[in-house]
Amino acid sequence: MNISELTREESYQLTLKWIKDRGVSVAEIAELTYFLQEPFIPNLTHEMCQDSVCTVLKKREIQNAVWTGIQLDLLAEKNQLAEPLLSIIRQDESLYGIDEVLSIAILNVYGSIGFTNYGYIDRLKPGVLKRLNDKSTGQVHTFLDDLVGAIAAAAAARLAHDQQS
Amino acid sequence: MNISELTREESYQLTLKWIKDRGVSVAEIAELTYFLQEPFIPNLTHEMCQDSVCTVLKKREIQNAVWTGIQLDLLAEKNQLAEPLLSIIRQDESLYGIDEVLSIAILNVYGSIGFTNYGYIDRLKPGVLKRLNDKSTGQVHTFLDDLVGAIAAAAAARLAHDQQS
Amino acid sequence: MNISELTREESYQLTLKWIKDRGVSVAEIAELTYFLQEPFIPNLTHEMCQDSVCTVLKKREIQNAVWTGIQLDLLAEKNQLAEPLLSIIRQDESLYGIDEVLSIAILNVYGSIGFTNYGYIDRLKPGVLKRLNDKSTGQVHTFLDDLVGAIAAAAAARLAHDQQS
Amino acid sequence: MNISELTREESYQLTLKWIKDRGVSVAEIAELTYFLQEPFIPNLTHEMCQDSVCTVLKKREIQNAVWTGIQLDLLAEKNQLAEPLLSIIRQDESLYGIDEVLSIAILNVYGSIGFTNYGYIDRLKPGVLKRLNDKSTGQVHTFLDDLVGAIAAAAAARLAHDQQS
Repeated sequence: MNISELTREESYQLTLKWIKDRGVSVAEIAELTYFLQEPFIPNLTHEMCQDSVCTVLKKREIQNAVWTGIQLDLLAEKNQLAEPLLSIIRQDESLYGIDEVLSIAILNVYGSIGFTNYGYIDRLKPGVLKRLNDKSTGQVHTFLDDLVGAIAAAAAARLAHDQQS
Repeated sequence: MNISELTREESYQLTLKWIKDRGVSVAEIAELTYFLQEPFIPNLTHEMCQDSVCTVLKKREIQNAVWTGIQLDLLAEKNQLAEPLLSIIRQDESLYGIDEVLSIAILNVYGSIGFTNYGYIDRLKPGVLKRLNDKSTGQVHTFLDDLVGAIAAAAAARLAHDQQS
Repeated sequence: MNISELTREESYQLTLKWIKDRGVSVAEIAELTYFLQEPFIPNLTHEMCQDSVCTVLKKREIQNAVWTGIQLDLLAEKNQLAEPLLSIIRQDESLYGIDEVLSIAILNVYGSIGFTNYGYIDRLKPGVLKRLNDKSTGQVHTFLDDLVGAIAAAAAARLAHDQQS
Repeated sequence: MNISELTREESYQLTLKWIKDRGVSVAEIAELTYFLQEPFIPNLTHEMCQDSVCTVLKKREIQNAVWTGIQLDLLAEKNQLAEPLLSIIRQDESLYGIDEVLSIAILNVYGSIGFTNYGYIDRLKPGVLKRLNDKSTGQVHTFLDDLVGAIAAAAAARLAHDQQS
C-alpha cells in the first residue's frame, strides 16, 4: 500500500469504519459531547455535536491515534501481543497509561480546555463508555474507551472555540 | 539573586510559602488526594496523602509551575498585566487554557494516569477547590485552583505507582 | 474589557502587535519555517511559509501562549516579578522549563511531528533566534525565543500536513 | 500472567531484555546522553550517563512506552498489522506522529527541559540512531529510534536536575 496516495477522504472513511467495526457509532460519541457541552452552549443540538465529532475525526493526528489504539485492543483480544504487554492491556492494568497518552494526543489538537472534560467523563462513564468498560464480554477496549472519551471531549472543546465571533 | 545557589531545601520551602501566602494549606491539598485515592488503596491514611503532596512539591519542574501561576494570579489581582491578558485572567475566560497547560506540566511528572483524576476534581470542585472558585472575594485564583487540583492528582498518581512491590 | 466581545480578527491583530513590539517580524519567523521545511517540500516559497505562520497565529490557544510568555519577559525586564521567579527568568536558568511548556502547547496544536523541528532550531539558533539569545542587550527574551521557535515549527508541521491530497 | 505480581525488578529486567533483543545496548543509549550533556557538565563520565539511563528505565511509565513501541515495530516487521497502519509504520510515514507521542511521554517524566535535546539528536542522528534509521536492513525501527532518543534525552535532563545541590 502506498500511503502517500491515501487521500484525506479515504483516511477519514477508514477511521469511521474502524470505529464502527468495534461497535461504536458517531452518534454515541456525539451524545457524550452533548452531555459535556449542553450546560454551556444555549441552543446546542445533537446535529452540531455530530458535525463536530466528524470534523475531529478528519484530522490525521487523531486518525493515527485511533488506528494505533484499536489495533492494540484487537491484538490483545486475539492474544497476539508478547508478555507482559498482553496481560497489561487485557487487564487494563491501572499503571499502564499509554491509552491515556494516545488520548492526550487527541485532546491536544483542540487545546488544553478539553482535558478536564475528558477526565470528568472517564470517571463518570456515561453512555457508551459504560458499555465499553464492561469486562464480561470477552472484548478488549482498553484503548477504545479512552479514545472515545477523548474524541468526545475534543469535539466539545472545538464547539467552545467556535462560539468566539 | 544567584539562582544556581538556591538549594533544593530552599526552593521547597519557598514553594510551601508561596502556596500558604495564597491561603491554601498542604493539608487541604492532601484532602483532595485522599478523596481521589481512597476508593483504590485500602488503609490509605491522611498522613500518607500529606507525605505524597510534600514529595510532589519537592520537584523543581512542579515548583516552577507553581511560582509562575501564582505570580500571574497576583499580578492580575493588582491590575499589573497588559490587556487583553489582564481581563482574560481576571475573568478566568473559558478559552484561556494556559492554567491547564501549567497543570498538565505538573501531572506529566507522574505519568499519564493522573490526568483523569485531575479532570474529575476540576469539574466536581470538592473541598478547597470550591473556595478557590468563589469569584466574589476579589481574589484571583485562575491559576491556583488548577495548580492545586494538579498537585493533588499528581500525589494520587504517585501513591498508585508506589503500590507496586 | 469584556473579553467575550474580542473578535477573532482583533485577537489576531493584537498578537501580531505584541510580537512586533518585541522586535520580531512575521517574515523572520517564516524564515525559520523555510529553513526547516525547504529540504522536504519542492517548490516551497517564502510566501507559503509566511501564510502558514499567519494561520498559526490565528489560533486562540497559540495567542494565549504568546501573550502570557511575552508578558512574563516584559515583567522580568522591568524587575516586576517576585523572587526567585525574577532571577530565574532574567537568567534564563537551565532548570526552568515553563518557557518550553508554553512552546509545547503551541506545537501540540499541529500534532507531534513539529517537536523534533522545534528542538533542532532551539539548539542551532539560526536567524532571529540568535539575536533573541544575545544576553548583552538588557532585554529579556527567555520566553519569546522559545515561542518563536515553536511558532515556526508549528507552521512547518502545518505545511507538511497540507501536502496530503 | 498476573500483572499485579510483576515486581519492580522484574519489569526493569524485562525492559532491558526487550531493548537488547532489538540490538540496542544501554551503553549506546548512554553515548547519546554523553554527547548531549558533555558541553554542560564538567567531569561528566560515561558511567554517570549509563547510571542515568538505567534509572530512567526503572520508571514504569517509561517501560510501558518502550514495550508498546517495540511491539508495534515487531508486528509491522512481521506484517501482522492491519492496513493502513501496517504501511504507515513500515514506511515510517512522515505524518504519523504516534512514535513521537510515546517519546514525549518518556520526556515528560523528567520535565520539559529534555524536549530540545530530543529534537536535536532526532535530526542529527548520531551514533546508534544512524543505524536504527538504515531502512535497508528489513528491520522496522519506526518506534525504537524515537524511543532511544527520548530515553537518552530524559537521562540527560535527569543529570541536569541532579546538579542542583
